[in-house]
Amino acid sequence: MNVYDLIIIGSGPAGLAAAIYAQRAKLNTLVIEKAMVSGGQVLNTYEVDNYPGLPGIGGYDLGLKFREHADKLGAVFAEDDVVRVEDEGDGKVKRVIGQDHTYEARALIIATGAHHRLLGVPGEERLSGSGVSYCATCDGAFFRNKVTAVIGGGDVAVEDAIFLARMCSKVYVVHRRAELRAAKSLQEKLFSLDNVEMVWDSVAEEICGENRVESLKLSNVKTGEKREISLQGVFIAVGITPESQAFEGLVDMEGGYIKAGEDCLSSAPGIFAAGDVRQKQLRQIITAAADGANAVTSAERYLMKH
Amino acid sequence: MNVYDLIIIGSGPAGLAAAIYAQRAKLNTLVIEKAMVSGGQVLNTYEVDNYPGLPGIGGYDLGLKFREHADKLGAVFAEDDVVRVEDEGDGKVKRVIGQDHTYEARALIIATGAHHRLLGVPGEERLSGSGVSYCATCDGAFFRNKVTAVIGGGDVAVEDAIFLARMCSKVYVVHRRAELRAAKSLQEKLFSLDNVEMVWDSVAEEICGENRVESLKLSNVKTGEKREISLQGVFIAVGITPESQAFEGLVDMEGGYIKAGEDCLSSAPGIFAAGDVRQKQLRQIITAAADGANAVTSAERYLMKH
Repeated sequence: MNVYDLIIIGSGPAGLAAAIYAQRAKLNTLVIEKAMVSGGQVLNTYEVDNYPGLPGIGGYDLGLKFREHADKLGAVFAEDDVVRVEDEGDGKVKRVIGQDHTYEARALIIATGAHHRLLGVPGEERLSGSGVSYCATCDGAFFRNKVTAVIGGGDVAVEDAIFLARMCSKVYVVHRRAELRAAKSLQEKLFSLDNVEMVWDSVAEEICGENRVESLKLSNVKTGEKREISLQGVFIAVGITPESQAFEGLVDMEGGYIKAGEDCLSSAPGIFAAGDVRQKQLRQIITAAADGANAVTSAERYLMKH
Repeated sequence: MNVYDLIIIGSGPAGLAAAIYAQRAKLNTLVIEKAMVSGGQVLNTYEVDNYPGLPGIGGYDLGLKFREHADKLGAVFAEDDVVRVEDEGDGKVKRVIGQDHTYEARALIIATGAHHRLLGVPGEERLSGSGVSYCATCDGAFFRNKVTAVIGGGDVAVEDAIFLARMCSKVYVVHRRAELRAAKSLQEKLFSLDNVEMVWDSVAEEICGENRVESLKLSNVKTGEKREISLQGVFIAVGITPESQAFEGLVDMEGGYIKAGEDCLSSAPGIFAAGDVRQKQLRQIITAAADGANAVTSAERYLMKH
């Protein structure tokens, strides 16, 4: 069997950036992607305005540009869904078992990404990218002087609300309990803002609108009272789930995220984690792409020693 | 005096990415750049082929695209050379003293970059970008099946040579001593490569060529013997110098680099370091830009608490 220098699992921004760096480093590399198209979460993003150098580009177009860049450099792709990896340790060949085939490589970059948890209410999927967003940092700027709601009660939800309050005319924070989970300092900041209104003990029942979000239907879990708020944006911050199930037991994780620093070194020698699947502060296209570059650099250093 | 939320010092990829993220976060931000144009080291790069999504773009064009992106989002720039910063600690306003003016901000991102050390030989500056390079990771792929030389004896020089040996027909490693400083494992790898030739006890005297590098003149420091090697590329790996002099005593440094992790937090609360000036594994456009995003996220968290 052909033993690759490097196998990259996943071809979102992290995997494609890794493919670009690996091609330029002339490593014999295979990229395995389970979807028919590369790009990952970016593909479902309506507009991306924070990838430096490409202002206002469509998410689908950006995914395509990354893929074309990798293709232009001769990257090789396989369509397969990785179910597990067999690793005998430092310096040993790693076996990647997919649903269709088995592949072997001397080093491995896991760049399988993550997906945002859904609320699971009517209108959510239909209006995703048309007012429904899972990332205030990514999409907040499109809601200047508009009314928005954040759904959630953790740190991310509160940070999102504080962030949005700087640009939106009004921000509702909808939380199913009477108390937030977020850090106290964040809560104090949130409660000090004039244009934020808390909606306690409430859950979203439906996100409404023809082609764009127009209103949010809520239900009070204690009183059963219904309420409909007119707004233009709904930010859902109920957590994200890393795509790391296939690698359980292979590398150390925390909350499903692979433990690895900026250098992308996992607990297993020769296996690197890049992008949203990695434990990190900020999950953005630009930070995922940087991970891809760092992971290849670390993989090269590992390969030089073996 | 107007107290900004955030001042960004420097407008290379890290500073401009920070400006983009800060504008989208609606922070009241000023970017201070000492040069007449933004872009930093990128401006002097002939071609950039590893910034994902923009294959084969000219360095000057990429710098321009980053600046245009920041401009489009309304970033505000001042042309000034920062000489020092006065900081009274956590939560206090930071005073940035430039040659022309003094500025104040609640948080600060230092993104002043670094520059590659020059050899200081005839032909070096004239042929920079035309065969003379300071970054094998950036430019190596342009020298496929060509003959190149690496000048230096440290880890970076040896890593560069191993990297180049995968694509070049031949790689000379020129070092002024009879022994390398690089890690032993790297040296072993280097010496095992058929297409690498060591040139010991030698220094470069001149890089020659009409419009592109054609040859390298060497001198043996022990015997005085002269030698001229025909080649197409000269990679100079004699170290880089971070642009951090103005911040000595303000933040902890090591070897001139500001000590800060992936989250860009320096030792001084409210002061963040992004890009090449930060202690890090890999200095590339994509990793600098990711730092800009991370530094703004950290600055926002800091500002929320104060």
